[in-house]
Amino acid sequence: MKKKIKKVNAAILIIGNEILSGRTQDKNISFISKWLNLNCGISVNEVRIIPDIEKTIIENILLLSKKFNYVFTTGGIGPTHDDITAKSISKAFKVKYEYHKEAFEILEKYYGKSKFNDGRKKMAKMPRGSKLIYNPSSAAPGFMTENVISLPGVPSILNSMIENCKKFLIKGSRVHSNTINLYTVESNISKQLGLIQKKYYRNVEIGSYPFFRLGKIGVAIVSRSNSLQKLKYVNKDLLKLAKDKKIKILKI
Amino acid sequence: MKKKIKKVNAAILIIGNEILSGRTQDKNISFISKWLNLNCGISVNEVRIIPDIEKTIIENILLLSKKFNYVFTTGGIGPTHDDITAKSISKAFKVKYEYHKEAFEILEKYYGKSKFNDGRKKMAKMPRGSKLIYNPSSAAPGFMTENVISLPGVPSILNSMIENCKKFLIKGSRVHSNTINLYTVESNISKQLGLIQKKYYRNVEIGSYPFFRLGKIGVAIVSRSNSLQKLKYVNKDLLKLAKDKKIKILKI
Repeated sequence: MKKKIKKVNAAILIIGNEILSGRTQDKNISFISKWLNLNCGISVNEVRIIPDIEKTIIENILLLSKKFNYVFTTGGIGPTHDDITAKSISKAFKVKYEYHKEAFEILEKYYGKSKFNDGRKKMAKMPRGSKLIYNPSSAAPGFMTENVISLPGVPSILNSMIENCKKFLIKGSRVHSNTINLYTVESNISKQLGLIQKKYYRNVEIGSYPFFRLGKIGVAIVSRSNSLQKLKYVNKDLLKLAKDKKIKILKI
Repeated sequence: MKKKIKKVNAAILIIGNEILSGRTQDKNISFISKWLNLNCGISVNEVRIIPDIEKTIIENILLLSKKFNYVFTTGGIGPTHDDITAKSISKAFKVKYEYHKEAFEILEKYYGKSKFNDGRKKMAKMPRGSKLIYNPSSAAPGFMTENVISLPGVPSILNSMIENCKKFLIKGSRVHSNTINLYTVESNISKQLGLIQKKYYRNVEIGSYPFFRLGKIGVAIVSRSNSLQKLKYVNKDLLKLAKDKKIKILKI
């Protein structure tokens, strides 16, 4: 019986001058992408990093939310003047930017009435109709507006919230992957590798990535597919290629 | 005398399924962005990460090369079947994809005639009229086509080549930055910080980024501007804010 493959995709929109300027090394892209594929069978097909500029955020939200099943934004949902993600998304979808009742209550309870100042209150403002993504580390919730999920930029907080996105997402077919590390250089196997890719081009995507480990040069061959069966066929062909060329395989 | 500010900008286009899938953590964005600002006064205004799909590469090359002064691509210029950057850029600019004479000679000399196989020869193929970016680590050159500079994805090789891009770039005014680390939480200073940003909104961009260090919570206030003088004014206001609020400053 053939299993039907269901493709669900997403884009990630990183909002933040600090990533663009190189001051901060992004860690969220890799985390979100791996989590989505492993837990929801959703593939990230595009990532954009843009500055904290309202017009730019609006344009990208509108474009990406049309093009992909989901958009994940990171950054710009804190209490300071440069946190303009919620307001920009409200404008993009032409809905009111207002206090979310439950978010307000969560934050008021967390900080206590006397310490619930304007900056903190700002974190309860979001596009009307948004659904909350609960935050077990620092209370301020993320939110989902249409098909756009907005999360904070601080990796430890984002990581603690990601499981709470699951219930809002349609599941797709997971992309499985298989890696073989060969002690050779790319140009020694490029021809044969191209032929294997050609043979399986409909179902398997084969990538080739040079690596350096303990002073030795190698190539990681990564095959990715919705079908475990097809991955096995490719793996067999790759092992044969290594044997024919007398290439050592690195076991990790 | 007022110094004239010259704004030169760039986009970075990361081409590679391995970054999108989360398998590989990108290290090139931060490196290129910092290097461009520090050495050439060029600001990175947008980053995109896209898969190894010809149509997608062509669309993004055309769009970004029109929108920004320069586009830096990384990845997809090696010898294997998934390296399609050079061919895609040729198609984008409607020029022939062919052997570059000098690149061919460099690679033939590096590998020796007998070991110069088809995979290696592929790395000498690029869009007609491209200028070479020399590669001191592994010979295979990058190239510049119109305003698009294509570099490899392996960070150590890219890093060794970046200085060779300099001669092709128009210089802009450098963006200077100043960071103050305060032992407080964002919501304690968000109002005052907003007022300082408002006062200098024309010349200085102020960002606020929470940090965790040795179990303590803090906020890094990063001010960025073409004008060192204006940065000094902002710094003075920030020190006053810390003093007024009795906030300790972390010295690093």
